[in-house]
Amino acid sequence: MTMTLHIEDLHDEALAARLRQKLDRKTKPVGSLGRIESLACQLGLVLGSEMPRLRDPQVLVCAGDHGLASRGVSAYPPDVTWQMVENFLAGGAAVSVLARQHGLALTVVDCGVRHEFAPRAGLLSRKIAAGTADSSQGAAMTAAQCAQAVANGREVVAGLPGNVLMLGEMGIGNTSAAALLLARLTGGALADCVGAGTGMDAAGMAHKRAILAKVLQRHEEAVRPLQALAAFGGFEIATLVGAVLQAAAERRVIVVDGFICGAAVLVARALEPHVTQRCVFSHRSDERAHGLMLRHLGPDPATPAQALLDLGLRLGEGSGAVLAWPLLQSACAILAEMASFESAGVSGRSAA
Amino acid sequence: MTMTLHIEDLHDEALAARLRQKLDRKTKPVGSLGRIESLACQLGLVLGSEMPRLRDPQVLVCAGDHGLASRGVSAYPPDVTWQMVENFLAGGAAVSVLARQHGLALTVVDCGVRHEFAPRAGLLSRKIAAGTADSSQGAAMTAAQCAQAVANGREVVAGLPGNVLMLGEMGIGNTSAAALLLARLTGGALADCVGAGTGMDAAGMAHKRAILAKVLQRHEEAVRPLQALAAFGGFEIATLVGAVLQAAAERRVIVVDGFICGAAVLVARALEPHVTQRCVFSHRSDERAHGLMLRHLGPDPATPAQALLDLGLRLGEGSGAVLAWPLLQSACAILAEMASFESAGVSGRSAA
Repeated sequence: MTMTLHIEDLHDEALAARLRQKLDRKTKPVGSLGRIESLACQLGLVLGSEMPRLRDPQVLVCAGDHGLASRGVSAYPPDVTWQMVENFLAGGAAVSVLARQHGLALTVVDCGVRHEFAPRAGLLSRKIAAGTADSSQGAAMTAAQCAQAVANGREVVAGLPGNVLMLGEMGIGNTSAAALLLARLTGGALADCVGAGTGMDAAGMAHKRAILAKVLQRHEEAVRPLQALAAFGGFEIATLVGAVLQAAAERRVIVVDGFICGAAVLVARALEPHVTQRCVFSHRSDERAHGLMLRHLGPDPATPAQALLDLGLRLGEGSGAVLAWPLLQSACAILAEMASFESAGVSGRSAA
Repeated sequence: MTMTLHIEDLHDEALAARLRQKLDRKTKPVGSLGRIESLACQLGLVLGSEMPRLRDPQVLVCAGDHGLASRGVSAYPPDVTWQMVENFLAGGAAVSVLARQHGLALTVVDCGVRHEFAPRAGLLSRKIAAGTADSSQGAAMTAAQCAQAVANGREVVAGLPGNVLMLGEMGIGNTSAAALLLARLTGGALADCVGAGTGMDAAGMAHKRAILAKVLQRHEEAVRPLQALAAFGGFEIATLVGAVLQAAAERRVIVVDGFICGAAVLVARALEPHVTQRCVFSHRSDERAHGLMLRHLGPDPATPAQALLDLGLRLGEGSGAVLAWPLLQSACAILAEMASFESAGVSGRSAA
């Protein structure tokens, strides 16, 4: 697959005005469906229609291991990555349960898990290596590995049906990689970018911060997006970057989960500024730096990206994206099915 | 129907501990599903089960007109109440569209609309009168009318199947009645209780505040819950009070919409302190006093009621309750279907 991409600016004043007008004529006070209305407008703009239809939504969970996990940056042992991949496929993980609730197709990609999986339905092997290298000792991946992982993400998405892509991830240690990417790509202070991940205590957090400070300094020359991605990892994040780019180029709606998927969007946006026009940020995570990340993912520096849900989630896997899914369906249903004041014979506002 | 009710304290330390333990063994970091986990615990306690099942959820929209609406307290003319009832029944209103999306049964109750409706499926006539009296001139309803409306709400709910009741309302002028109830029952300053409703401008708001201040003062002796309800109205709020009481007595899960349904819960809680244990507050409304109301609806004075969604909604009808519905299903699915660390063979936290 070539790296050539064309991710156009979806800015379409005329369509936006038609969508706005259509919503304003619905039988409700103007703007009274709040965020559902802005979501409806966005979905219309992404899909290029006053009556957007969400087809064949796909949940894509990218998994990979992190060499840095051996440095004690997570509350859980690295084996949990492969064990959770098995759990996704067996249907017992949160994202499996939630995807089943909503009848969503779930695909898991082994982007570089330290385990050999038996092939089976729902699992794609795009393994670069058995986990990234330890980023405290050198780059997490080579430039070639990084490019391959991004290409894998593009190729996987190109092969999926539908016009909605919901992103999730699994990888013990990957809040560390995401925190490092956030710090490097935004220039934010590392202390503001690091959180408790799966649940570190205070001592664990102090250790994690100290390790990440060293990693950040060790790779101080890795300032361009793909350099930073290669330096910090992981394979699942790089694959997600490719998935975001491909989905954006195809004008799919991209439903972003939490902190780690957000880091992938941050990298993709640094490469292609218009990708976030296609992104629905499903929730504001309890990982403390996610608010900072959302401020950097907004349409302009003054406007943070607005998440749909705020439920104190900090699980990942795509669980937040799938929990938010019915709201996207609601937004489209409101556009397609609600009566207008005229069609329903309902009086408008009183004369002032 | 007798007014005798027994609404027990659902406090059950043993069941709460079993629910907590069950969630903590699921394959996820402890607490990482945030609000979904506390919701799962609540649903388990209401339905008295470690594996709560939501059966036959019912959306109940209560409608009524307000004599005070003739005083210009709403941006819309009073005829919109009956026109929107027609719209609910024709399937074109927001709540109709959203209920259809989720396959939810929708019942509309004419609690006192100023219009004669042709009988049809989905519409129950429990009309007390063609709108309440003007509360700026006297009580909105007599004590007998108020008692009848409450009894109607109880009787309607007793006849509905299922163990989940989702509440909505329609009534031009009913944010005024709700604001007055909030001010009287909580002792809050009226200025903090009044909002823009369907969308008043600054001049309209000043007028609304002035009118409501007079109404509040006129009925300064109406301090007990049912006295205040009779003084300020409306028929739909009184019917909702009965619906809440009956649903609570039957241990149904009560999904509360926004500001007006919240006012009904406030009255019901003043009568029966344990009703809010059964209430799921579906969203935090954009009506400005809803935050204050949620602070008064919490489990204790220091803990506000926690709404599931915060989407800037200010429509009513039950639209927020129905938007939140899939989250209740998710909470139950997580309890019922997620694997445990043991069953999935996933490692727990690393030794400290």
